[in-house]
Amino acid sequence: MQKLVDKVVSGDLRSASRLIRMIDDGHPQSHEALKQLFPHCGGARVIGITGPPGAGKSTLSSSLIDIIRQRNKSVGVLAVDPSSPITGGAILGDRIRMSRHALDEDVFIRSLASRGHFGGITPATRGAIRVMDAMGKDYVIVETVGVGQDEVDIARLADTTLIVWVPGLGDNVQAMKAGIMEVGDVFVVNKAEHPDTANTVNYLKSVFRQTGSSGPIQRDWIPPVLETVALNSRGIDELFKVIDEHAQYTSRASEYYLARKRADCEVELRGFISREINHRISRQLADGEKINAQVGQIITGETDIYVVTDSLLQELE
Amino acid sequence: MQKLVDKVVSGDLRSASRLIRMIDDGHPQSHEALKQLFPHCGGARVIGITGPPGAGKSTLSSSLIDIIRQRNKSVGVLAVDPSSPITGGAILGDRIRMSRHALDEDVFIRSLASRGHFGGITPATRGAIRVMDAMGKDYVIVETVGVGQDEVDIARLADTTLIVWVPGLGDNVQAMKAGIMEVGDVFVVNKAEHPDTANTVNYLKSVFRQTGSSGPIQRDWIPPVLETVALNSRGIDELFKVIDEHAQYTSRASEYYLARKRADCEVELRGFISREINHRISRQLADGEKINAQVGQIITGETDIYVVTDSLLQELE
Repeated sequence: MQKLVDKVVSGDLRSASRLIRMIDDGHPQSHEALKQLFPHCGGARVIGITGPPGAGKSTLSSSLIDIIRQRNKSVGVLAVDPSSPITGGAILGDRIRMSRHALDEDVFIRSLASRGHFGGITPATRGAIRVMDAMGKDYVIVETVGVGQDEVDIARLADTTLIVWVPGLGDNVQAMKAGIMEVGDVFVVNKAEHPDTANTVNYLKSVFRQTGSSGPIQRDWIPPVLETVALNSRGIDELFKVIDEHAQYTSRASEYYLARKRADCEVELRGFISREINHRISRQLADGEKINAQVGQIITGETDIYVVTDSLLQELE
Repeated sequence: MQKLVDKVVSGDLRSASRLIRMIDDGHPQSHEALKQLFPHCGGARVIGITGPPGAGKSTLSSSLIDIIRQRNKSVGVLAVDPSSPITGGAILGDRIRMSRHALDEDVFIRSLASRGHFGGITPATRGAIRVMDAMGKDYVIVETVGVGQDEVDIARLADTTLIVWVPGLGDNVQAMKAGIMEVGDVFVVNKAEHPDTANTVNYLKSVFRQTGSSGPIQRDWIPPVLETVALNSRGIDELFKVIDEHAQYTSRASEYYLARKRADCEVELRGFISREINHRISRQLADGEKINAQVGQIITGETDIYVVTDSLLQELE
């Protein structure tokens, strides 16, 4: 394991891929490896990209990779949750991998597939980011498919989170609700050749103006709203400039920024603890003839899932 | 609590609302109440509706409510995950509540807002379905906003799950991946006035033909693909007929159907156990000066989240 860790730190792609796969599979030794990588981390800037299906997240990632490479910086890309049954993210991941970056050694692209039975994919994503950081990547792009709570939690692992939106998607009002302000650092209205673009941009800006000064601590970063056409790289230079500005903002470590980081970290820490305990329970239940018999009785209505939960819990104590 | 349970069973709307809110808030006594409701359940047919944002799920729900009420049956509606920050589901929930069904006493509409820190919203949804079942509702419609894994898990609680799709949403290919076949019983291509409708329908049908006979047990229900225009109720009669056919299919309890039910039930049971244990840990950590101090040290890079996880776990043991 020490050898694997050393090879990851030296930038070896095969070792890094192997460790990421172990993390994704929830391999027990991966936890130890991640601890050993800690002293080698902190150099990478993590850019999260999320938004609804079809918004063009992969194309946007690809444009950002171009800019990063033009600056002679290296980049790791994580496509998260390719196993999502409905959004079918695996295909997005494949699409990047097949693209023009495939032969560039300084573009390291990996997908995270597993969800684990408990705790979601967030811990695996944290681990995979750490691997890419320890490898010496200057940037790590985390692209999350879908728009559920899990994806938002993953976005919180990033230093800068881009929310990708498209004009004319349906209801602008769907973008408005509480939460999105906390998660998104930069809003990107992609496919900006669409006639509804100006409406969507103005709408988002007005929302941010209204909510800008709410909350116990004065917000000191109002998310900019940018227009892009990722397919032909329109607006990408401007976007990257804003990402840099956000990096400078976070390095100033304002009260608002630190409070947010604290909250994110606490949620994640609780998630880590929860996941470890669930792994242990899962192992205890694993050789469960009993669970099978009880599942049968629940289905036929002989007993009740709430009753069975109580009795299994008593046995585990 | 016994009084509350009795009132729910008698169909009292205020008591049912109160109990659903308690379940949603994770109130410790709600677990006991749900056990007591068990003997009064089993009469309701649960229809799950899921799909990407903007597919018209609420309009479809509303059309199904119309049909159910025309048949003089009662219906409960659960709008799940209105707190999703990006899809902004609360607004969808509100939209139904404000609609023409608002004054009909036999249409009981509730939203589930909380996610809980652990275990997601699935257990709360199970509980709320049980309340509506015990009230004597003939149908319970569960509308889930978003397309992540949580939403798919919720869909599994239904007797019949509809996946709502729209033509021209972007990539048909996104609908294809493994998992969707297991979750959807009926596929609805809504907004079928769109010129791409035939392509989308044919595409889905071809996918189901290819995968129809895979898996260890012969699949004996190939999901039908229907076209609807929910806004003017086109295709809704046909859809309801198919839902009835699926009810007859499930009552035949084929080997395939039972294997699927078993798997769903086991996942849910493990989730219940996991959630209970996490509640307990959460309470133990709640008065955590320590967790605050350690979060601070993680943020500044003095220590590592993996190290802190290990040390907190040792304390909990």
